[in-house]
Amino acid sequence: AANSDLIRATLFPGDGIGPEIAESVKQVFRVADVPIEWEEHFVGTEVDPRTQSFLTWESLESVRRNKVGLKGPMATPIGKGHRSLNLTLRKELNLYANVRPCYSLPGYKTKYDDVDLITIRENTEGEYSGLEHQVVRGVVESLKIITRQASLRVAEYAFHYAKTHGRERVSAIHKANIMQKTDGLFLKCCREVAEKYPEIKYEEVVIDNCCMMLVKNPALFDVLVMPNLYGDIISDLCAGLIGGLGLTPSCNIGEGGIALAEAVHGSAPDIAGQNLANPTALLLSAVTMLRHLDLHDKADRIQDAVLKTIAEGKYRTGDLGGKSTTSDFTQAICDHI
Amino acid sequence: AANSDLIRATLFPGDGIGPEIAESVKQVFRVADVPIEWEEHFVGTEVDPRTQSFLTWESLESVRRNKVGLKGPMATPIGKGHRSLNLTLRKELNLYANVRPCYSLPGYKTKYDDVDLITIRENTEGEYSGLEHQVVRGVVESLKIITRQASLRVAEYAFHYAKTHGRERVSAIHKANIMQKTDGLFLKCCREVAEKYPEIKYEEVVIDNCCMMLVKNPALFDVLVMPNLYGDIISDLCAGLIGGLGLTPSCNIGEGGIALAEAVHGSAPDIAGQNLANPTALLLSAVTMLRHLDLHDKADRIQDAVLKTIAEGKYRTGDLGGKSTTSDFTQAICDHI
Ligand SMILES: CC(C)[C@H](C(=O)O)[C@@H](O)C(=O)O
Ligand SMILES: CC(C)[C@H](C(=O)O)[C@@H](O)C(=O)O
Repeated sequence: AANSDLIRATLFPGDGIGPEIAESVKQVFRVADVPIEWEEHFVGTEVDPRTQSFLTWESLESVRRNKVGLKGPMATPIGKGHRSLNLTLRKELNLYANVRPCYSLPGYKTKYDDVDLITIRENTEGEYSGLEHQVVRGVVESLKIITRQASLRVAEYAFHYAKTHGRERVSAIHKANIMQKTDGLFLKCCREVAEKYPEIKYEEVVIDNCCMMLVKNPALFDVLVMPNLYGDIISDLCAGLIGGLGLTPSCNIGEGGIALAEAVHGSAPDIAGQNLANPTALLLSAVTMLRHLDLHDKADRIQDAVLKTIAEGKYRTGDLGGKSTTSDFTQAICDHI
Repeated sequence: AANSDLIRATLFPGDGIGPEIAESVKQVFRVADVPIEWEEHFVGTEVDPRTQSFLTWESLESVRRNKVGLKGPMATPIGKGHRSLNLTLRKELNLYANVRPCYSLPGYKTKYDDVDLITIRENTEGEYSGLEHQVVRGVVESLKIITRQASLRVAEYAFHYAKTHGRERVSAIHKANIMQKTDGLFLKCCREVAEKYPEIKYEEVVIDNCCMMLVKNPALFDVLVMPNLYGDIISDLCAGLIGGLGLTPSCNIGEGGIALAEAVHGSAPDIAGQNLANPTALLLSAVTMLRHLDLHDKADRIQDAVLKTIAEGKYRTGDLGGKSTTSDFTQAICDHI
């Protein structure tokens, strides 16, 4: 029953393991008494025969109206001649910044125990322009597009994020020694914004060097802001440092205050429907959505319960070396709430 | 004095610490009785007032004639309106493949102790085309160019390398889910070549996933082949796993059998001229040059001496946490030969 005290949020469970991990989020939210009412939409790689579309107009409208949502994994077919659903959502909703907090999980050991950084990725242009063509037989080209508008917008978001989240430094990642015009424009915009935030330290790091420094000593970094493809690469690298994409939250910020949180791991068709999936990334993404809504109490309670459950180690899913099912792991989280 | 039994090789000491580490290579080669006569050329960022060029025609001709050479670091000025010398050399000499072996050094501890992989990077095109322009104010674009010819050439080199070096697998790294035409063509060429080498396993890995897997478990990889920018990024990431660019060799392969080995670290102007630089990367690069010349005995002796000196730990330069000078470290290597 509709309740006017409830915040409506869109939910795209997605493909593969998506529905199971979305179920886990719904359960945890119920137990934590989160005042959210889900508006669930089917978006996935199976074409709706009526619309011939992977993505209905209603699903997009739902996010635009609610301004807040959560999405599970959506499979990206390689070379099948249609564009990734993830990309379509980013473009259609103008999700200009992809924010991925990445921190070492207490009690879950990797080679690194001091990771605490945020990657902020420009999410609409760059190498993802979709503009490619064959010049002559055997010669193809892709266009990387960098605009002043999108660069300023994501830089502004990064500095504002740093300031409001008690972060000290923003590093702009680039390859302007090679792409002087495109990455050069990106850096120019970052510098302009940096001047408005004298309390935040600003530095520029070449992407190859950045990757080397990240694997040697990730504690050197704080907030990183970068063009689309570098963000794709570096956010995955960072996820690897703390255990993988199954553990890292992500949130997309769009024009007009839209926030679409998402698990960025794959849809894992091999284990779909078997109650084996790890819902952590989707749960922690849902937490970023709650923070966006300023529901920090609920966010803290859920985040603590997830981290505690992982730290205790009694209930862990297969990807973390455990034997737990999705539902037992979820129940353990609920018990901690 | 010229000696017809000697092989002539070009030497570009380069900028900053270049001359010191080149001196170290010359000394080690003398002690190891390597039958090489160096043809030294000044190539660097200080313009020769007569030629107004960073790079003389004679230096290029020297490599073309000798077909083998060694280069130290050359500074790349950012945004000064001229192209990097490293890039100019690659284009002028058509150095189509950049080969970087990367292995854990015995006795030099990092978080990883089982790295043993080879990155092979297409070195002439891709994002390094140099084609960029402003479309309208605030909108710039760069062209990424992929050709069938260059892709086949580097793929062929990678598979041939794998076969002749007892390697089992070649992984092609790409982002063809986004750049379906450019990276798609690159993959198509790799697949064509893979069919000619049924004894070598072949796989395709998306670059973001590759970076995540590399930091989680580098032992998953063997030989990696990829377009230019991905090679730039991944080779530095890999270097980070084993301690940094001061330790990893590199060799550029060009049309007509040219091999130009190079240290890919920076010119470190802050410590230049102070006898503090680590010559390891240039020495191990010189070793790859010797292997290219089939001087495996000499290559083995020098490589063993370098690794032993580092493993013993008595003489290590500052970058490796030691206090040794360049000359003491070099002397220790010579003593092991
Ligand atoms: C699935 C793919 C299209 C996507 C991307 O490249 O952006 C993914 O890697 C991500 O990071 O969300
Ligand atoms: C210095 C720079 C132009 C160069 C590159 O980007 O190729 C360097 O990073 C390298 O890997 O040799």
